[in-house]
Amino acid sequence: MNYSDPIPIPSSDDTRTALLAAARELFAEQGYDGASVRAITSRAGANLGAITYHFGSKEELYLDLLTSLVRPLRDRIIETTSRPVPPLDRLGDVVDAYFEHLAEHPDLPRFLLERIASGQPPPAPVAAVMGAILQSLSSVVAEGQADGSIRPGNPILQSLSLIAQPIYLTLVQTPLRHFLGLDLSSGEPRQRLVAHAREFVRAGLAADLPEPP
Amino acid sequence: MNYSDPIPIPSSDDTRTALLAAARELFAEQGYDGASVRAITSRAGANLGAITYHFGSKEELYLDLLTSLVRPLRDRIIETTSRPVPPLDRLGDVVDAYFEHLAEHPDLPRFLLERIASGQPPPAPVAAVMGAILQSLSSVVAEGQADGSIRPGNPILQSLSLIAQPIYLTLVQTPLRHFLGLDLSSGEPRQRLVAHAREFVRAGLAADLPEPP
Repeated sequence: MNYSDPIPIPSSDDTRTALLAAARELFAEQGYDGASVRAITSRAGANLGAITYHFGSKEELYLDLLTSLVRPLRDRIIETTSRPVPPLDRLGDVVDAYFEHLAEHPDLPRFLLERIASGQPPPAPVAAVMGAILQSLSSVVAEGQADGSIRPGNPILQSLSLIAQPIYLTLVQTPLRHFLGLDLSSGEPRQRLVAHAREFVRAGLAADLPEPP
Repeated sequence: MNYSDPIPIPSSDDTRTALLAAARELFAEQGYDGASVRAITSRAGANLGAITYHFGSKEELYLDLLTSLVRPLRDRIIETTSRPVPPLDRLGDVVDAYFEHLAEHPDLPRFLLERIASGQPPPAPVAAVMGAILQSLSSVVAEGQADGSIRPGNPILQSLSLIAQPIYLTLVQTPLRHFLGLDLSSGEPRQRLVAHAREFVRAGLAADLPEPP
């Protein structure tokens, strides 16, 4: 070892992964501001300089984490909008896909909303994913408008109205459970919730045409 | 003055009001955890013990503030659901009322979402207001189901789907402005957004019946 080298810092993928996992837990528990560099590195079993070494800063670590959370959502939605089924069915499948993704990643809404609710501009990776999702949904809406199955109207607004359903209905589950005793998070109540949202979106988008025979 | 009295603390309504205004600003800027008792009392021009004296604690001050923000929303929604117009029109008016209230109180979503997103139970005044709003909307939905103008389905879920539209479409305005250059917060674009949401909700709820002559 050359003694003029800086003190070695563990640089394995393991440390990086441990930092991401620790930050994810602490951001979920305490928010971005509440989770200190010291708390993250300590929980990851890394030294205090490890975040700077692996990510550059806490903000860069946060953006990396956010990117790793939202890209799979984008990929899932884009896959769903590419299925060879009629536009309204594809958009119904998108509602299902959102609910599934949010159920599998229960800390995702907090990550997204913490910044959105604060009125700060969205971090670049979130903006890119939202843009890609909106674009793919809008093109399905436009396709349905062209074949007469979907009502006229701005495809971006119609796509946002679709997304509103799984996002809001997932977010309000905690208050609903606490004050109405209504647990929609699993089992048959959850299936009814998802089926309801799918049907509401379908009815909200569908052109007033008779069903094909 | 009797010297055995405790040291007098300003107890006028002015101090109370100044504390509420300062807390509202600081919670909006820095979140609940970020806004210290010292920062709130300092901005209000009050002494450090003023929050304890007037409210009991920072949490009680927060609940007072939240109550003052959500009760007018409840009153507005309940007034709207009492208008002597057909159920679908009343529910469309509720969409408008939400948009108006959120535009007039732009810090309200942050107050509500900060706790909801964290997975904590909703504070009691918020739970009470959400319960009252859901009850009044559900009864309009049930009325529309009884007269055949609204689709069958769980009235609470249908009410939540309605609320999702103004809440989500208001929340995403900041990201939309930043990454799509789409400013829906005022003027004609805002009118189109509100009209779109109203129409989406109406279509999502309406029974598939021919319009009355």
